[in-house]
Amino acid sequence: MPGDDESKGGQALRGLRYWVEATFPFRQGLGAPLLGLGPYANVIDLGDGRGLAFCTDGVGTKVLVAQMLDRYDTVGIDCVAMNVNDLICVGAEPLSLVDYIALEEQDPSFLEEIARGLHEGARQAGISIVGGEIAQLPEIIKGTRAGRGFDLAAAAVGIAPLDRLVLGENIQPGDALVGLASSGIHSNGLTLARRVFFGDRALDPFTHFDELGRSIGEELLEPTRIYVGPVMEVLRSGLQVKALFHVTGEGFMNLTRHRSEVDWVIDYLPDTPPIFRLIQRYGQLTDREMYTTFNMGIGFCVCVPADKAEHVIEVVAKHGIPAWRIGYASAHEGLKKRVLIEPRALELTT
Amino acid sequence: MPGDDESKGGQALRGLRYWVEATFPFRQGLGAPLLGLGPYANVIDLGDGRGLAFCTDGVGTKVLVAQMLDRYDTVGIDCVAMNVNDLICVGAEPLSLVDYIALEEQDPSFLEEIARGLHEGARQAGISIVGGEIAQLPEIIKGTRAGRGFDLAAAAVGIAPLDRLVLGENIQPGDALVGLASSGIHSNGLTLARRVFFGDRALDPFTHFDELGRSIGEELLEPTRIYVGPVMEVLRSGLQVKALFHVTGEGFMNLTRHRSEVDWVIDYLPDTPPIFRLIQRYGQLTDREMYTTFNMGIGFCVCVPADKAEHVIEVVAKHGIPAWRIGYASAHEGLKKRVLIEPRALELTT
Repeated sequence: MPGDDESKGGQALRGLRYWVEATFPFRQGLGAPLLGLGPYANVIDLGDGRGLAFCTDGVGTKVLVAQMLDRYDTVGIDCVAMNVNDLICVGAEPLSLVDYIALEEQDPSFLEEIARGLHEGARQAGISIVGGEIAQLPEIIKGTRAGRGFDLAAAAVGIAPLDRLVLGENIQPGDALVGLASSGIHSNGLTLARRVFFGDRALDPFTHFDELGRSIGEELLEPTRIYVGPVMEVLRSGLQVKALFHVTGEGFMNLTRHRSEVDWVIDYLPDTPPIFRLIQRYGQLTDREMYTTFNMGIGFCVCVPADKAEHVIEVVAKHGIPAWRIGYASAHEGLKKRVLIEPRALELTT
Repeated sequence: MPGDDESKGGQALRGLRYWVEATFPFRQGLGAPLLGLGPYANVIDLGDGRGLAFCTDGVGTKVLVAQMLDRYDTVGIDCVAMNVNDLICVGAEPLSLVDYIALEEQDPSFLEEIARGLHEGARQAGISIVGGEIAQLPEIIKGTRAGRGFDLAAAAVGIAPLDRLVLGENIQPGDALVGLASSGIHSNGLTLARRVFFGDRALDPFTHFDELGRSIGEELLEPTRIYVGPVMEVLRSGLQVKALFHVTGEGFMNLTRHRSEVDWVIDYLPDTPPIFRLIQRYGQLTDREMYTTFNMGIGFCVCVPADKAEHVIEVVAKHGIPAWRIGYASAHEGLKKRVLIEPRALELTT
């Protein structure tokens, strides 16, 4: 649940948060919530010096792209990714996941394809899927392909010693921000991307784009990268990891989800992946819209002391993922947290 | 995920189960799944002699009844109930829950009402709600009232010493089954009940029934009873609790979800609550349909040695919930598990 805003949605979220946070006192000691609704995952006290990280997320409208292509064996990877990438942001080792699939109709091949993706995601994340719920809800679920409507979400748990939680508390000006390459659009901004290509332009999802080397539909369906392997190795390497950011909905605004009095200066960005250039061009979107909606090629960020950035990049590279030192923390100015993206002359504030 | 069947849905479920169970080996030691997909909740190894019970469930089409009445402050209770009542079946103490709300549109008052119900459910269950996801999915979610379409699910965790898990392993012929009163239809069988009243008969949900003392809509919206309080007290009382059953979808067939070679003889049933008599009469349904779809007034069952049944009934009564010794375990005959409901001359088999 990222930052509030003044919209109707923002009001709704505040009302919900009020009642949810009012449940925190219902558990004291064992099971007490230790964080809040701001971080990527909350952590509950296991009473033995360890915390259980617990979060939930869904795939959103990426399932509609799956229906356009009539291909269902990858969104399960996204479903796992969206949850485990959140868990690791608090320094937790992902352990397990339960999936929730709401269906318009129930069809064997279709459901098994979804499960194949979940299995592949679990394999990549090194977790087990220990249960799930299949709800047949033809009166509640619809889709873009008859009988193939579905919604896909999950909840996941991870574990960490309480004294090794990563909360973004001790970021100092000068600390480095390392950006890890995304695999594409991941599972955020699909509503906007679909509108740009399939709404306004009414493109066929199988339309080939040379710059993508494949069709626009296939590109948008590319599964979300799972960062568990490299990030757990960085955490275990003994480096002082100061903050971890999953770049999800709201794009680079995710970099303000820390507890320190610092801003960010992004002074280097690798080439923007073709899919984002294409979305921006077709949708005539501003840099601001792009960087506050999409990951722009940076799916995850790690903050470490400046002299450790190279080490992080090397560890991540071993897992086959490009990474770059993309910026640094700067002394906080003003009331709002800022992300200054120098290569785009763009300043984002909370 | 209850028993398979030969239907299309059964095939789909088997395909899904295959891939989900194939993820179990991805975790060994810490986080290893200890049960399977059969019990109400799976349990993962916390590595210190304790297990984390983990499950997920949704409210299903009860949300459509909420929309009919335009009243949203109770389905959150059902959402919590469906999950925590599952957790306690393996002997776990519920700790925490994350909710997942998928919305057709986002409206402040409506979302806050849902959250009020979640809060009340958490209060009754003694758990915290530590996070959640609100997904605005107008292209995926629909409902019976414009702009009010939503789907509501959750996942929950609980904890138990591994040597005190309740797995239904040591049930002996003669052991007693104590049935706890339900609060009504709970969150199962709503699709059938809605068809009976609002489909076939096209009743207005505000139609008053003398035998219910209220409208049919209000009766169907009655929140699911939360059994955490009494069941945790029974578990802590030192009684030898042999099995626990949440009577959910598939009704009395839930009583076959144990690991012992026993059948059940139900030799006493309290008066069937008016709502079930009404559904049966209006829908011209058989006893078999009723007892394999609805809880029929018994929302939860506890199996204990015969001489401990009275004690269980007393503990439960302290929590304001009527309970009865409704039957006993009998020596298992044949290949399939059986539930013999003597007062209805009805035999259910797996």
